[in-house]
Amino acid sequence: MAFKIGLLGLGTVGTGTAEILLDPQGRHPLLKEIEIHRVGVRSLDKPRAVTLPSELITTDLEAIVTDPAIDVVVEVMGGLEPARSLILKAIAHGKHIVTANKAVIARFGDEIFTAANEAGVYVMLEAAVGGGIPVIQPLKQSLGVNKISAVTGIVNGTTNYILTRMQTEGGEFADILADAQKLGYAEADPTADVDGLDAADKIAILASLAFGGRINLQEVHCEGIRQVSAAEIAYAEKLGFVIKLLAIAKRLGNEAAGQQQTPDTPQDSAHSSPSPISVRVHPTLVPLTHPLASISGVYNAILVEGEPIGQVMFFGPGAGSGPTASAVVSDILNIIGVLKTSSDSQKMHPLLSCSHQHYCTVAPIAELVSRFYARFLTKDRPGVIGSLGTCFGKHNVSLESVVQTGFQGGLAEIVVVTHDVREGNFKQALDEIRALEAVDSIPSILRVL
Amino acid sequence: MAFKIGLLGLGTVGTGTAEILLDPQGRHPLLKEIEIHRVGVRSLDKPRAVTLPSELITTDLEAIVTDPAIDVVVEVMGGLEPARSLILKAIAHGKHIVTANKAVIARFGDEIFTAANEAGVYVMLEAAVGGGIPVIQPLKQSLGVNKISAVTGIVNGTTNYILTRMQTEGGEFADILADAQKLGYAEADPTADVDGLDAADKIAILASLAFGGRINLQEVHCEGIRQVSAAEIAYAEKLGFVIKLLAIAKRLGNEAAGQQQTPDTPQDSAHSSPSPISVRVHPTLVPLTHPLASISGVYNAILVEGEPIGQVMFFGPGAGSGPTASAVVSDILNIIGVLKTSSDSQKMHPLLSCSHQHYCTVAPIAELVSRFYARFLTKDRPGVIGSLGTCFGKHNVSLESVVQTGFQGGLAEIVVVTHDVREGNFKQALDEIRALEAVDSIPSILRVL
Repeated sequence: MAFKIGLLGLGTVGTGTAEILLDPQGRHPLLKEIEIHRVGVRSLDKPRAVTLPSELITTDLEAIVTDPAIDVVVEVMGGLEPARSLILKAIAHGKHIVTANKAVIARFGDEIFTAANEAGVYVMLEAAVGGGIPVIQPLKQSLGVNKISAVTGIVNGTTNYILTRMQTEGGEFADILADAQKLGYAEADPTADVDGLDAADKIAILASLAFGGRINLQEVHCEGIRQVSAAEIAYAEKLGFVIKLLAIAKRLGNEAAGQQQTPDTPQDSAHSSPSPISVRVHPTLVPLTHPLASISGVYNAILVEGEPIGQVMFFGPGAGSGPTASAVVSDILNIIGVLKTSSDSQKMHPLLSCSHQHYCTVAPIAELVSRFYARFLTKDRPGVIGSLGTCFGKHNVSLESVVQTGFQGGLAEIVVVTHDVREGNFKQALDEIRALEAVDSIPSILRVL
Repeated sequence: MAFKIGLLGLGTVGTGTAEILLDPQGRHPLLKEIEIHRVGVRSLDKPRAVTLPSELITTDLEAIVTDPAIDVVVEVMGGLEPARSLILKAIAHGKHIVTANKAVIARFGDEIFTAANEAGVYVMLEAAVGGGIPVIQPLKQSLGVNKISAVTGIVNGTTNYILTRMQTEGGEFADILADAQKLGYAEADPTADVDGLDAADKIAILASLAFGGRINLQEVHCEGIRQVSAAEIAYAEKLGFVIKLLAIAKRLGNEAAGQQQTPDTPQDSAHSSPSPISVRVHPTLVPLTHPLASISGVYNAILVEGEPIGQVMFFGPGAGSGPTASAVVSDILNIIGVLKTSSDSQKMHPLLSCSHQHYCTVAPIAELVSRFYARFLTKDRPGVIGSLGTCFGKHNVSLESVVQTGFQGGLAEIVVVTHDVREGNFKQALDEIRALEAVDSIPSILRVL
């Protein structure tokens, strides 16, 4: 008996998915037991890169998610609606779900997983983060035995492509964005990518899996790369850093301001609630020796840190028809693997299903503890570095380096890198510094990994 | 009801495993359902880093593998015997197996998996390759939807540590090996590591999973790093390469000598048997831009290539108590996940069990197609480069570069890098070149990725 797939969407990812399913030879033998039963599209007339019997194709998406013959609904149409409603209706009709839709999961994961648990079906989303890179599944099935401390990723290929080109060519953001749009590496409306929204959706999903709780997307701090200049990239390089748009989810443990590390007060003891996490997306100075520093172009990489594993990193193509389809089909295979093993649909596989129901406590960005980089333009006279240092010191901001890097239009240019400090303290110090008579402006403030 | 574990061995990995199981707080909730039932050790008197009730610990290993209360036997004792016999006996008694023992699996995998399939139990081995890096599970559960073309890994931390230090310090192999032994990065008897045997075991396992067939370990070509000199590393660096001990498993497709690529003769059609694979371990010149080039020290990385995913890479700590224990416990969790889902032990999970029974056809090394690097010492006179070129040409060896790099003891030093050539042809050309009156010696021959 073949397992029957209903495919919602026949765009880039849908086509890639169909191509794998129609060509099982040389792949996992289980693929031969999967059959594309129906395919839902917006327009029947559009030319398609993949040949499917025309009777499979329909514009009636509701008919697919309610079709009693279908075992797994694969949602690769994207967008919030009707994707969300179709997923929920499919779940209500007892279908398992495979989706590549990070936006729907990051916003409506709570509703979708609650419905799926009630219906006893799986919702799989490997393709939603990191394209073809297996990272969702390792987090669910391999790394959960660790106490995860951080997940740090380059999870948006468009911005990594732009930053890589700015780095190698010395070009400005707007020019390279325009060229990336021409070449198809950036969308006509680049907002979701360059403002970090896509990365925010993805880190919310990764944080949820890594820290075992749901994430309120509104609490994810998000800054894009529009303000990153060629000058900043050059300064960073001189100091031994490369600028990357990082998506970071981190357990705020003993390092958090005001908390002292004492060996006999464990973070996760049965009687204290777990410490809050920080979830954020922002351009970041990454030390050149860091594993994420060498990830260039449209590639993605996700670094997971925990106890006792240390650091593991997953690297690969973060988008594209083939890689994303590989993730989609592997999810289908995992569902079918369980269906073939289990005779009782009431017993959900504990590593494939979503068990957590509470929300993680996400700390406000002011409580973040991080290193910072700031560039100042000041009057060129003795004592300025002293005044900066005094202001930082007053606010408990410890400095790693203060370097006068040169002059610009008669003003002295000073670059400061701090040690780990509480973001709130750092911002207060900057407010005071801005008011100093000798300080002209602060053209750039960036966080340092 | 808790699932009961019998632990064979309480050395480095066994201790790490017990530490995770005894401290479930902050990890996957399923861990709370796992109980260490018995622990088998060689000596009861040895001091242990982990505290276990003394009544759990025994020297009677047979009693553990036959104990009716035990669900999963975790073999972390290492070595071939009694590990193999205990695993087989545990299987015969219906126990699932988790092992970190690459040597046993690479040599006796056929016997062990055949027994496991008959008994309806799982044999899990994430810890056998790449320490804590999830790579076995992604190969079994995620990447199998692809047509895998190659798996290339740095899978031995000791040799990568030695080569990295040779590279950064310019030191010679013997000195750095001695220092690595002092520091605990190399064993007193370093043979298994430096001669590539450990890497050969691991690539045999990876090849088996990637290409869906068993591998005869005798057919794995294996060269270690003893002959790699500081001079070679320096020459390689000048040419834009770093020398790594790579473990490579590759489908010999259309590139193989004598085979022409024609679009209408697919490699994997239903009527032709799949093309042979090449499985080998040897020091390799890796281009500095390649993702594996930057993997340094004791870290491991495994690059998997396939259609349609392209390239994905897994990076992390390749050894050590904590990382390896993370892999062991994740295997235990995966078995228990299936046991909790399935009421019928006769239905094996198709992505966790080992389904293949045939052996892969491994091509002899002479049929390998690769780029090569060779360094020649010749008399310093006109026409020598011409004679070399003529000899190579006669044997169909196409050259990418021929560079006279300098002089050594009155002899000219010439470095040659070839295009992809059949190894047999290259070796024939070298035999002829060795006989040339102008050629003094060929101090180094290496493969190029």
